[in-house]
Amino acid sequence: MTGRPKIDGVLETCLYCDDVPATRAFYERVFGFTAMVAEDRIVAMDAGKGHVLILFRRGGTTAPVPVGGSSIPPHDGAGPQHFAFAIPAAAYGDWKRHLEDEGVAVESEVDWPSGGRSLYFRDPEGHLGELATPGIWSNY
Amino acid sequence: MTGRPKIDGVLETCLYCDDVPATRAFYERVFGFTAMVAEDRIVAMDAGKGHVLILFRRGGTTAPVPVGGSSIPPHDGAGPQHFAFAIPAAAYGDWKRHLEDEGVAVESEVDWPSGGRSLYFRDPEGHLGELATPGIWSNY
Repeated sequence: MTGRPKIDGVLETCLYCDDVPATRAFYERVFGFTAMVAEDRIVAMDAGKGHVLILFRRGGTTAPVPVGGSSIPPHDGAGPQHFAFAIPAAAYGDWKRHLEDEGVAVESEVDWPSGGRSLYFRDPEGHLGELATPGIWSNY
Repeated sequence: MTGRPKIDGVLETCLYCDDVPATRAFYERVFGFTAMVAEDRIVAMDAGKGHVLILFRRGGTTAPVPVGGSSIPPHDGAGPQHFAFAIPAAAYGDWKRHLEDEGVAVESEVDWPSGGRSLYFRDPEGHLGELATPGIWSNY
């Protein structure tokens, strides 16, 4: 273990999308996220300090992307991915009502044996989002 | 904007894998993450307080998963995904050496016009990981 440098957590979480503008509009409207970078290939949304939710156009990054004298290596993804946002326990009911008010169906609710609760929803691309209160993991 | 409840950032970032045990071993060895839950379908790794990196077996969650009296809705993913971990600026050189010492190729390095630097690597599944120092985003 000696010599391993420090990680400050996960910075970027990426979803691959067929319709990035529609997906961006969904996260702006429902979650209030704002775009820090918005291009045809990528929309990077501010999901809280040190948390970036990136929407990539599917098939848009299958070749290296030049940056300065270097490049971003290729990547791509398919299928309905899963991710979760953290919410305060006291906000659970407010989030459920907010999703319903926005016309976003609550696909499931789970009371975890370890404690904590989760609400599940779909974004316009079919990705499975979760809103989870503290207690569902030993580090949260 | 009134009425929208609070988000405390991204909690879970998920990678879909053909060989979950090998991928788990990679993140344990290279990053020192520990598994909080380890099943055939899912390995959930502690990537720092409030940060969970989940390795899902591809095709393992295409039907609802019962939990208590409810269920986790289905999801799945394919392709070489991208994600990024946050690292302190002072740890950049140490991380580069650590990856090399572990036999993990540095596929690219980027000096961002806005400030900050990134190191790119591949995990055993071909997912494109990034180690990024502060300054690369307006919220980081």
